[in-house]
Amino acid sequence: MTKIVLAPDSFKGSLSAPQACAALEAGLRRVWPDADIRARPMADGGEGTLDAILHAVGTDATRATMALPGASGTMRDAHYGLLREGGGSVAVIEVAEIVGLTDAAAVRTDVGARTTTGIGILVRALLDRGVREFRIGLGGSSTNDGGAGLLRALGVALVDANGAPVEPTVDGLATLAAVDASGVDPRLVDARIAILSDVNNPLCGTLGATAVFGPQKGVTPQRIAAFDATLARFAALAEQAFGRAAAGNPGSGAAGGLGFALQLLGGTMASGAEVVADLVKLDAALADADWAITGEGRTDAQTLLDKAPFVVARRARRAGVPVTLVSGAVDAASLATLAGHFAGCFALPPGPATLDDCIGHAADWLADRAAEVARARSALRRT
Amino acid sequence: MTKIVLAPDSFKGSLSAPQACAALEAGLRRVWPDADIRARPMADGGEGTLDAILHAVGTDATRATMALPGASGTMRDAHYGLLREGGGSVAVIEVAEIVGLTDAAAVRTDVGARTTTGIGILVRALLDRGVREFRIGLGGSSTNDGGAGLLRALGVALVDANGAPVEPTVDGLATLAAVDASGVDPRLVDARIAILSDVNNPLCGTLGATAVFGPQKGVTPQRIAAFDATLARFAALAEQAFGRAAAGNPGSGAAGGLGFALQLLGGTMASGAEVVADLVKLDAALADADWAITGEGRTDAQTLLDKAPFVVARRARRAGVPVTLVSGAVDAASLATLAGHFAGCFALPPGPATLDDCIGHAADWLADRAAEVARARSALRRT
Repeated sequence: MTKIVLAPDSFKGSLSAPQACAALEAGLRRVWPDADIRARPMADGGEGTLDAILHAVGTDATRATMALPGASGTMRDAHYGLLREGGGSVAVIEVAEIVGLTDAAAVRTDVGARTTTGIGILVRALLDRGVREFRIGLGGSSTNDGGAGLLRALGVALVDANGAPVEPTVDGLATLAAVDASGVDPRLVDARIAILSDVNNPLCGTLGATAVFGPQKGVTPQRIAAFDATLARFAALAEQAFGRAAAGNPGSGAAGGLGFALQLLGGTMASGAEVVADLVKLDAALADADWAITGEGRTDAQTLLDKAPFVVARRARRAGVPVTLVSGAVDAASLATLAGHFAGCFALPPGPATLDDCIGHAADWLADRAAEVARARSALRRT
Repeated sequence: MTKIVLAPDSFKGSLSAPQACAALEAGLRRVWPDADIRARPMADGGEGTLDAILHAVGTDATRATMALPGASGTMRDAHYGLLREGGGSVAVIEVAEIVGLTDAAAVRTDVGARTTTGIGILVRALLDRGVREFRIGLGGSSTNDGGAGLLRALGVALVDANGAPVEPTVDGLATLAAVDASGVDPRLVDARIAILSDVNNPLCGTLGATAVFGPQKGVTPQRIAAFDATLARFAALAEQAFGRAAAGNPGSGAAGGLGFALQLLGGTMASGAEVVADLVKLDAALADADWAITGEGRTDAQTLLDKAPFVVARRARRAGVPVTLVSGAVDAASLATLAGHFAGCFALPPGPATLDDCIGHAADWLADRAAEVARARSALRRT
């Protein structure tokens, strides 16, 4: 029986990774009704990471809900995941679920007043429940607070020149005079925090969080320099309090500086797609497979920078399994570069089509493409 | 060594069939530099048939030129093909080369005054040279003369009530009173004429040559009935003179009634693609092949009505060779119907693209698609 692993990323704007798996499976069943099809939806730590993991892991995973303050402070129900692994639990947190750009209340609030406090409250609650393993996906945040909200919620004191607490927002940090880390939650010492992000930027400077990602969150050009200077001062004080440098590390600029705060707490940067591949147990699915399919909304040479389809390709190669790419679009100029990694790269359109056509027909066309590639592979010379 | 047969039709508006073969080969060589690649460009009897055959047959074929009257009577150099087969020669005539819609002089002349005389002169000249095998492709003619020009050039007398010759045009036939076939070239008795056409219409009536194809040649709606009546009278007289019925046969309405005249002369309708497949010796190329690729500008369920890709699929199946389709576009709604005939159906666009994009990039994208399908086929599970 043909054994096939389906490990697509989401098709941004049209299909979640689990939906892409369903479409691929529908197409393959036309050709091989009885195939052993293993859906392992992928993600890179950004939006959709939680759904992909929960879908792939099945009964060993729980989707939990907790009322948490969003970036604006407004309470909202946020989802996170709990996976049973070995004796303990692994928490999967998608930052965008809690302080994401899709939260209307957060976006109505000025970016200078947004905070990551909700993330810190969730981490503390999970520590209370005995969780020590954290996988935190940083994509899609609306915040620019340097992770100050997270730190304060976990016991770090942020005070002004009069010793009064400041708000854990970039506006509040403008009057910050001292950081005291002596009260930080001691259970964090035993915690393992993997920071899932494909952002390598440092916290400050021209490549920093504010200059590069601030504008898309509402930081006006006039305020970039002031915000950046505020975060730089905050970082210097916080690093001194923790006795650890982090602001210059790659990834400290992710999620408005949340990457900095998590690294101060001992978290380590990880390839989002690699961590997700581990969590969905991709290697076990590939071990005796005959074929794998991956894909994403649009593939180009950037995909080889550790995006989900490339991680799938690398692991499939290690397992000796050919992996075919089916994406919404495949950049023609990148094909020569991509060719060495995939057993064929295919795009969705069955003819001239607009982007809206591709989005509207994504599920049907993905099923069609999977079926046609399966037919091309299955038909061998008569023996 | 992988043996691959390339047998695409032309991609209308972008690539001739030989150009499509070249693009497919370029793509395949990226994956299998040393493959045994056999280009057998296909056609269906319409425009491009002569080029496809001459390209495929190579040194056993000659492209010949003869000055012949076009549909308007203006002399022009027209190409035809002569293939050595067994002891004799096979003539390949593409009607569009002589009386085609691409001849500006013909199109400037009113359709009532156009004639197929040039075709008759060429057939007679070939009879003079001893040719007895004719393959005549009927697509793309600008004429509506019922084949009267052909018949007159081959010795049939067309006279009015006074016994004076009438012009072999639909205007001239309006005063036709008698047809005398006694002078028809006697060498035609030994000739074998295959009429290549995918048109099944009869000569006259609502499904006839004038009603269905006249308008695109310039027959105004007001003149359809009169033209049709003229051709019906001509047909009745001609059938009586030849002692043979033909006007009601499928294909008599092809090429403005040239299909009728050729059938009166003993010609038989043939599937254009089947005849071309024979002429390019497709079966011999397929005999020990591992894989075949066919394609066309746009594929839908109509393709299964004996269009070139379907004929290639049928012959490949007979030879036990899987055949993959790569077309400019593949109608998504027809995929279920097409699926049983092809080892995968693929389209050109690598993402959202306009028809102009597809036409402009046809060669590059066709090469890319061939390479990617080859990669999908070649990568099998490690052993």
